[in-house]
Amino acid sequence: MPDRADQVVEIENASAAGPVLLVCEHASNRFPERWGDLGLSDAERRAHIAWDPGALPVAQHVSHLLDAPLVRSHVSRLIYDCNRAPDHPSAMAQTSETYQIAANCGLTDDQRLERTREIYLPFHAAVEEMIARMMSRGQRPVLVTIHSFTPVWHGVAREVELGIIHDADPALALAMLAQARQSTALDCRLNAPYSAADDVTHTLKLHANPYGLRNVMLEVRNDLIATAARQEAVALFLASVIAGAMAETDTMAAKGAA
Amino acid sequence: MPDRADQVVEIENASAAGPVLLVCEHASNRFPERWGDLGLSDAERRAHIAWDPGALPVAQHVSHLLDAPLVRSHVSRLIYDCNRAPDHPSAMAQTSETYQIAANCGLTDDQRLERTREIYLPFHAAVEEMIARMMSRGQRPVLVTIHSFTPVWHGVAREVELGIIHDADPALALAMLAQARQSTALDCRLNAPYSAADDVTHTLKLHANPYGLRNVMLEVRNDLIATAARQEAVALFLASVIAGAMAETDTMAAKGAA
Repeated sequence: MPDRADQVVEIENASAAGPVLLVCEHASNRFPERWGDLGLSDAERRAHIAWDPGALPVAQHVSHLLDAPLVRSHVSRLIYDCNRAPDHPSAMAQTSETYQIAANCGLTDDQRLERTREIYLPFHAAVEEMIARMMSRGQRPVLVTIHSFTPVWHGVAREVELGIIHDADPALALAMLAQARQSTALDCRLNAPYSAADDVTHTLKLHANPYGLRNVMLEVRNDLIATAARQEAVALFLASVIAGAMAETDTMAAKGAA
Repeated sequence: MPDRADQVVEIENASAAGPVLLVCEHASNRFPERWGDLGLSDAERRAHIAWDPGALPVAQHVSHLLDAPLVRSHVSRLIYDCNRAPDHPSAMAQTSETYQIAANCGLTDDQRLERTREIYLPFHAAVEEMIARMMSRGQRPVLVTIHSFTPVWHGVAREVELGIIHDADPALALAMLAQARQSTALDCRLNAPYSAADDVTHTLKLHANPYGLRNVMLEVRNDLIATAARQEAVALFLASVIAGAMAETDTMAAKGAA
């Protein structure tokens, strides 16, 4: 096991041969020494505000099922949320749902730049590196980001169980939605519990849109992936739906994978 | 002067305080030792196929006039064209206008990946680094790429003298075109001699669109910037038009520079 003290991003299954590129921006609730725990309690650091609980093991299972590389963060989103631009208010959030992140208030320009350089830039450089590797062997990567969301938000229960979110190109999301609704009783919805209009698709904008790559952002309600068995079951379902939607959109894609 | 033997990108005027970020992807006709001269003659390596003649000195003048950082390549576009995605046929062009680049034919996947990693990825990482720096001090960078084009293409003379090219957001380009036509007798045209449909706006797609930044790609006919005096004159004109168009679009911009 390498020393990960300074590592903010990891590429798992980097030599996988499949055309899907998985990204998990909120995989970790780690608070490395250099930035400290931001004054948060143990409970706060385990809560959904610090990461997307269950998203990483689901992404890891999907990675193995689809033979897909996985780029994942190794630092809490409260230190830097890699799915947000450097000037977005929640890149280094001062509040998250009902929580105050006091240590993120009053950051200087230099402190913001330091986190951006140390976390945001290397994270997205790792995604670009994988896109370069995949393209160099003739593939058109299919970008899939995997997230989880809290079942209760500001006191209101969310009924949606799987959110399938798109940015400029809805093709893969629409195909996945159709496939998902045929194969599960889960409450699957398009652009729920939020959408690109809420500024949550930064990774898709950065890495899929410029290359015209098929892409989708998946949001699983985290109570559905709270145990290892559920994570594996949901991953099996997602892998199947991703593969089905890819087959369906292959004919629509400008260029198919070589 | 630093040793530039291994340097493929340089940031000039990096501590400039203005909101414009200049990019010159085709600034150089250098062929570093490690990739060799691709078997090209001296004349071929001086021709427009290897770089955009005159674009760098124009960009440097604009950089000083607008107090703007400038990210520029330090390697010929024939080794890697930083304004093209890694899987684009002209990223490592096998032909350019009437020229054959025999040494770029039959590259292996590994050779293509090596150039992509050594040139394309660091070049765009440098642009992202500058965007991060500018955003961390409260600016919304305005991305301006500076190019030149050959007056004769496949034997046909081009009448356009200044091309103002946009990608998804035409606002800055349209404002520049109006300003330019008021202040010069040059033949200024929108999306000429080519447009986003010709896949020439990769840098804008990568760095401006994901952040919603104002952006434009400028193309100057290279006979107009063949001498130092003309380069300076054209730069004065461009800087004035860029500044005027920025002022006009400031009120339209979602967020103004801080």
